[in-house]
Amino acid sequence: MSLVVVGSVAYDGVETPHGKIDRMLGGACTYIALSASYFTHSKIVAVVGEDFAQEDRDLLAERGIDLSGLEVAEGKTFFWQGVYSADMNDRETLRTDLNVFATFQPKLPESYKTQPYLFLGNIQPALQKQVFEQMSKLRFCGGDTMNFWINDFRDELLATIADWNFLLINDSEARLLSGESNLRKAAAKIMAMGPKNLVIKRGEYGAMLFRPNSLFVAPGYLLDSVFDPTGAGDCFAGGFTGYLAERGFDLQGDIDPHELHRAVIYGSVMGSFCCEQFGVERFRTLTRKEIDGRFEEFQKFTAF
Amino acid sequence: MSLVVVGSVAYDGVETPHGKIDRMLGGACTYIALSASYFTHSKIVAVVGEDFAQEDRDLLAERGIDLSGLEVAEGKTFFWQGVYSADMNDRETLRTDLNVFATFQPKLPESYKTQPYLFLGNIQPALQKQVFEQMSKLRFCGGDTMNFWINDFRDELLATIADWNFLLINDSEARLLSGESNLRKAAAKIMAMGPKNLVIKRGEYGAMLFRPNSLFVAPGYLLDSVFDPTGAGDCFAGGFTGYLAERGFDLQGDIDPHELHRAVIYGSVMGSFCCEQFGVERFRTLTRKEIDGRFEEFQKFTAF
Repeated sequence: MSLVVVGSVAYDGVETPHGKIDRMLGGACTYIALSASYFTHSKIVAVVGEDFAQEDRDLLAERGIDLSGLEVAEGKTFFWQGVYSADMNDRETLRTDLNVFATFQPKLPESYKTQPYLFLGNIQPALQKQVFEQMSKLRFCGGDTMNFWINDFRDELLATIADWNFLLINDSEARLLSGESNLRKAAAKIMAMGPKNLVIKRGEYGAMLFRPNSLFVAPGYLLDSVFDPTGAGDCFAGGFTGYLAERGFDLQGDIDPHELHRAVIYGSVMGSFCCEQFGVERFRTLTRKEIDGRFEEFQKFTAF
Repeated sequence: MSLVVVGSVAYDGVETPHGKIDRMLGGACTYIALSASYFTHSKIVAVVGEDFAQEDRDLLAERGIDLSGLEVAEGKTFFWQGVYSADMNDRETLRTDLNVFATFQPKLPESYKTQPYLFLGNIQPALQKQVFEQMSKLRFCGGDTMNFWINDFRDELLATIADWNFLLINDSEARLLSGESNLRKAAAKIMAMGPKNLVIKRGEYGAMLFRPNSLFVAPGYLLDSVFDPTGAGDCFAGGFTGYLAERGFDLQGDIDPHELHRAVIYGSVMGSFCCEQFGVERFRTLTRKEIDGRFEEFQKFTAF
């Protein structure tokens, strides 16, 4: 019973007010799988180049992540470089070398196709759909997307998310996808496109879960210091999806909404830990005990 | 047992994406007292000009607000005009005519001086202090301030808030007052200046209450449509302070932190109602039942 995660495995160059790293392990699939690994077993589908380091492969394997779907292609691994603003609420992309990711065609090992849980990271919608269609026994499927696909691949995207049980996007993406600036109205339009569970992430301000007849709003965790927000949204996805998989939920049937609320909180918890150190560094030491401790902290600082 | 509220009573000209009003009742004291009037009896201290309309006086009186401290001075009432950005998170001031407010010297009727609760709206810190010093039987005192006083009247402001039990400011004011961009660090510095209860408002994203050993974070209420955010922060102050006064709390002693959390939620509730119509319009029809209903909604959409 595993979670299949599709997306990018990359190298990132990141500069924040706290420092600069020229090259470190990154990519949505990496963050999602690492984060989810605290809750459930996961299997990744991604492509890297011949330069992908053994130590990075080891980090993923040590967290119990199945790498049989990690293809090594001729060429270099996807590289992204960016610099964050002083308050870290904005970032500027300095360089994007797609490299082997440019021609990524997700290939699912046979053992993946009968897994019950699927998370489709931010890649071309048609590829997301292709993966979805190869899965024969899904209990839930969700995913992420971005402005580029919303603007330039709208029809493909709509055909893709129509099958999903949940969609995780940020507030600006929700506005762009729906054409509504008010988030309640935006959410209603997006749920009508397919996903009956819509998570809208708001960075440091937390996240909201919309369902056809209910709303949950979670504030963000207030860190003493945000070192590097890279990957926080993907770690949210990993925590949210990982918790649902750990609990064995079937999102095609009924589910106690409070369980989905708790999944949002676990998502927030994982996003907050991600920001505490550069890149994936925090996952070298993070324990489930710390995660559950922060979940309890959320209970305390939201109780009234 | 009344709440004394000091601040501006004004006329506002406001333009939002929903429309434009050339002149309507406004001012921090007006919003705070109207909002608090759903919880407790309040007495205002303010100044207006000879142009202050009987119907505006009537609106306040109908909500049971004591106007014996509302001075009528020769000249015109304070006038402010502003226009909001498309997402209403920013506003530009087009015109500020201080008029009679320029020489405002708060005069407290004798009957005010023995009241237990005091809220000092955003006026010159030395005047806030002067009022505080005339009150002989306070159970709590709190207030608001703004960038102008923080930048140009810092020493006066620090001498003033040193006496307060709580301070209500927004996130940018908290950063400016403390010199810290991280809000946890900012809060620690501000609490060391005096107020042991610090509410940091974050507009549509909600509010936080810092106390020396605890934190409460409330998300904002998600409205279908924000008509006019003018006065929302002041209505928050009125709900927060009004609830504490209604419950008869003495903030100089111990208090169940959850009561303060509930006060933050009532503040958020009142701020949200304020945005539903232009200016003070919503207060013509709003009922306590609607207020308590929205409080319960907050309980539902934050439960996990």
